Amino acid sequence: MDFNKLVEQLKGYDYKNLYQNDFFLTWDKTQDELHAIWTVADAIRQLREENKSAKIFDSGLGISIFRDNSTRTRFSYASACNLLGLEVADLDEQKSQIAHGETLMETANMLSFMADVIGIRDDKFIGEGHKYQKEFADSVQKGYEEGVLKQRPTVVSLQCDIDHPTQMMADSLHFAHYFGGFENLKGKKIAMSWAYSPSYGKPLSVPQGGVGLWTRLGMDVVLAHPEGYEIMDEVNEVAKKNAEQYGGSYTITNNMEEAFKDADIVIPKSWAPYAFMERRTKLYQQGDFDGIDKLEKELLAENANHKDWTVTEDLMKLTKDGKALYGHPLPADITGVSCKEGEVDESVFNRYRKEMYQEASYKPYIIAAMIFLMKVKNPEAKLQDLYNNAQKRLND
Amino acid sequence: MDFNKLVEQLKGYDYKNLYQNDFFLTWDKTQDELHAIWTVADAIRQLREENKSAKIFDSGLGISIFRDNSTRTRFSYASACNLLGLEVADLDEQKSQIAHGETLMETANMLSFMADVIGIRDDKFIGEGHKYQKEFADSVQKGYEEGVLKQRPTVVSLQCDIDHPTQMMADSLHFAHYFGGFENLKGKKIAMSWAYSPSYGKPLSVPQGGVGLWTRLGMDVVLAHPEGYEIMDEVNEVAKKNAEQYGGSYTITNNMEEAFKDADIVIPKSWAPYAFMERRTKLYQQGDFDGIDKLEKELLAENANHKDWTVTEDLMKLTKDGKALYGHPLPADITGVSCKEGEVDESVFNRYRKEMYQEASYKPYIIAAMIFLMKVKNPEAKLQDLYNNAQKRLND
Amino acid sequence: MDFNKLVEQLKGYDYKNLYQNDFFLTWDKTQDELHAIWTVADAIRQLREENKSAKIFDSGLGISIFRDNSTRTRFSYASACNLLGLEVADLDEQKSQIAHGETLMETANMLSFMADVIGIRDDKFIGEGHKYQKEFADSVQKGYEEGVLKQRPTVVSLQCDIDHPTQMMADSLHFAHYFGGFENLKGKKIAMSWAYSPSYGKPLSVPQGGVGLWTRLGMDVVLAHPEGYEIMDEVNEVAKKNAEQYGGSYTITNNMEEAFKDADIVIPKSWAPYAFMERRTKLYQQGDFDGIDKLEKELLAENANHKDWTVTEDLMKLTKDGKALYGHPLPADITGVSCKEGEVDESVFNRYRKEMYQEASYKPYIIAAMIFLMKVKNPEAKLQDLYNNAQKRLND
Repeated sequence: MDFNKLVEQLKGYDYKNLYQNDFFLTWDKTQDELHAIWTVADAIRQLREENKSAKIFDSGLGISIFRDNSTRTRFSYASACNLLGLEVADLDEQKSQIAHGETLMETANMLSFMADVIGIRDDKFIGEGHKYQKEFADSVQKGYEEGVLKQRPTVVSLQCDIDHPTQMMADSLHFAHYFGGFENLKGKKIAMSWAYSPSYGKPLSVPQGGVGLWTRLGMDVVLAHPEGYEIMDEVNEVAKKNAEQYGGSYTITNNMEEAFKDADIVIPKSWAPYAFMERRTKLYQQGDFDGIDKLEKELLAENANHKDWTVTEDLMKLTKDGKALYGHPLPADITGVSCKEGEVDESVFNRYRKEMYQEASYKPYIIAAMIFLMKVKNPEAKLQDLYNNAQKRLND
Repeated sequence: MDFNKLVEQLKGYDYKNLYQNDFFLTWDKTQDELHAIWTVADAIRQLREENKSAKIFDSGLGISIFRDNSTRTRFSYASACNLLGLEVADLDEQKSQIAHGETLMETANMLSFMADVIGIRDDKFIGEGHKYQKEFADSVQKGYEEGVLKQRPTVVSLQCDIDHPTQMMADSLHFAHYFGGFENLKGKKIAMSWAYSPSYGKPLSVPQGGVGLWTRLGMDVVLAHPEGYEIMDEVNEVAKKNAEQYGGSYTITNNMEEAFKDADIVIPKSWAPYAFMERRTKLYQQGDFDGIDKLEKELLAENANHKDWTVTEDLMKLTKDGKALYGHPLPADITGVSCKEGEVDESVFNRYRKEMYQEASYKPYIIAAMIFLMKVKNPEAKLQDLYNNAQKRLND
Repeated sequence: MDFNKLVEQLKGYDYKNLYQNDFFLTWDKTQDELHAIWTVADAIRQLREENKSAKIFDSGLGISIFRDNSTRTRFSYASACNLLGLEVADLDEQKSQIAHGETLMETANMLSFMADVIGIRDDKFIGEGHKYQKEFADSVQKGYEEGVLKQRPTVVSLQCDIDHPTQMMADSLHFAHYFGGFENLKGKKIAMSWAYSPSYGKPLSVPQGGVGLWTRLGMDVVLAHPEGYEIMDEVNEVAKKNAEQYGGSYTITNNMEEAFKDADIVIPKSWAPYAFMERRTKLYQQGDFDGIDKLEKELLAENANHKDWTVTEDLMKLTKDGKALYGHPLPADITGVSCKEGEVDESVFNRYRKEMYQEASYKPYIIAAMIFLMKVKNPEAKLQDLYNNAQKRLND
């Protein structure tokens, strides 16, 4: 795409409130703000692909706090920070003194004297992750107001218990490019469906983040899951309101075939029932790790009642012309590959593998775009400047 | 402050011996050398706060070796290195081959081919930490003389069993700014007091580092602790000599109230008795981990005999106008917050929270100043150059 | 050395196939390619020693994957990446989601969106390490061809089950400098000998890498080991063919004294028998960790039958003028230092300690040279440019 057009496009959006702000939930942000992020993600990607530097920081730290295992998001964050000139410093809670009863207010301030951005992943316990991220942001805000922190670091959610914004923003940008633009997503049917997994109780943030964002793109969003696998009420409310406001629709069904019928995009993925997540959080708060193990087994037994919730070639045939775009945030439980019976048949997965990898490739740029827009005073001029006075990234 | 005044101030000090040197104990250094570090810390802070780059390294490694958990110091070191252009490479001894009986001479040389600075924290075992740091420095010195290392990396103590120099230097700079200059600290009474903690046997390096440094600032330094919690004899000797030489005083008492009486600054903090630390070191050398656990319990029982050594509002009233500056290197054991009964009442802690966070904020700059003065041939010209030909840190 | 001469020397080699390639085994590469790497290693070393920047990347990631403990190679890789401007991002498999049955194809692509180089150490299991590295490289190649990856990251073996190329290339450069040039290595006798170790079953990649590379330098290579400690057949074949082609010789003996007799260089080092390694791999694949522990004990018992395979002063006297260059990739098992009885007497080790440290000091430059030649389009012009338009590394 023409770089100048991206800059022109950006000028059309009102995104000034992103400056010096945080990113927690996509529904906290306006349409213009989301589109500004997508536009800047495309622009930074073009800089990189044309071997032009996107470095805006001469020095500075990007702190990461991963309260759960992560590969994709960890490397996406590292890539985004590095691309902009920030060095990643990871808080390994096991190697820190946090166990000694330190308050979050204190940790947040102690990490942030030279931090430009803090990326936090905390998705394990319902009612906890988003709360932790907000408290972190409130703490650094207070530190900034008190003069303890001379700059206010931006907090970016790398997944919480409610939303997975960098994933959802990356997926959506992929959909837009796949279908030739965001305007072409209007009226498209997307099925966010539960699928069977034998591995463990997975977060709800993907289905929740999905229905919370795609209902803003004028899409017909269908959420499908077995009874008992409901998502959070508050997110259902968000999705309903979005559908009304932005001219799409939001439907919930307990029938996977119904969801796939004539769908343009299908995202089938396992998650744990909300009630299970609530019980797990309580056991966790009580430090009852035996109880957690027992609960996990109970969950897997419950999951096993729904092995028919799996993506077969037959199921795919129900979709629009039998050719819906299949997607997954990865890693997937592939039947016969990573497990005996799982979320998807190998042949389906393999047919869309390349697309899924490309989907994933947007995440570093989405994170970089968020940081860029939250740190740069005049993003349009800065982008133009990076492009025109191009410093080579690899000076070969 | 006027940046040029800082540079002028620096010109008044004789600090040439810092160049290509190490930093282990504050009492190894002259008054002028310490003041040079404080001045450069202020200067680098100003560069950063005015969004000017302080980068003096185009590439290079800052190695860190943390032989104990750390958050504050870890991020301070990472911040300092990053600010100057060094990338941190952490030696995780668990992931290294050091367990295979490798000598320190070998490890030190193997890490240092491209290391500009080595930060070491080793505070757990009496008689060990400082020795390890010195041996490390001797090893790289030998490697340098033999031509194995083409540059001699600087060793900076990030805490040992004797001193915690970066903490103490940061605290002192905070006191100086709080009271309007180092000259105003003369004659001020500072109480370094033991306080009750239920958590674990904490290092002696903070009280030792405190009395070893503050007695050089012309202050009336009082060390208070229950019987049996004496610090190392050699540090008491240092403090006594300093008091004589620099016109202050050094008193030891077993009475917390006496220490607080009319004090201008109070630093109440738990530490383990020296005798306990010696026994722990022996058990450690014998690999007797059951013995260490047993000893830890014994210590906590002994600590519990001194629960009245805690900072209450009533105690604070005894201080100068009831308004002494309360400080703590953090994290503190706050009664009713991080433990049932601890070092300090919540209301006292909270009233000084902001001050303590600001105290902590000096540490990255102290470390950066140490590296700067140990690596830069002409610090005055270089500072002036960084200020005048300012490269923006965040090129926004 | 004169920098311009190094550049001239480089012009004489045909090394264009290194560009955008990988490095797995030295015997995959032509003589010219190896010499190009040695020349560039010397050139980058000179840049660094003259305080000139060798930074060719403005930003970018050097991924590392260490599937075994490492100090030397880890810091060498970190040094090389940093020197060229890349930030190291380490894949800690314990903190990743790889355990969840993710395919290597997926992991490889997910890590590589912004990776310029991937360094992999995987030396533990016979038949696995090299295979893993190749699969990794094939995966990113496929990702590149599919358009998932916009740049194709270079894979550098940091040791596999077959070869340890960065170690061997560094050792050989050290030998060349020690004897005054590669041409002087022709006809020199080098003994790669097994030696007794009580510690654990060590990889075969060092002896294998040694005989595979030194037979290309026109040297008389003798491999010595007790019966049962044979190396892989395929590597013996490589060494035999090399000896024929490049005018040296390759001999295998079960007599350590014979190997040392009149040798110019001796590299005595423990390794595990191939058959043992094969059994270990099988047990590992079966997840039989008790079996692995048992096998390890069996191996140490077998090793103990060969305690006479140790480097004494008497043995050294057999070498050329009693003054052969003794070398070891480190860390060594030194009798009376790191173990009761080990690979080498303390007096021998100490006499050559400095030389071994210098040997080790080449590894960062070898890695940097590999990356440089695999990433830079016109290495000769770029080196000249870095030298002439010298940006200071430490801007002091």
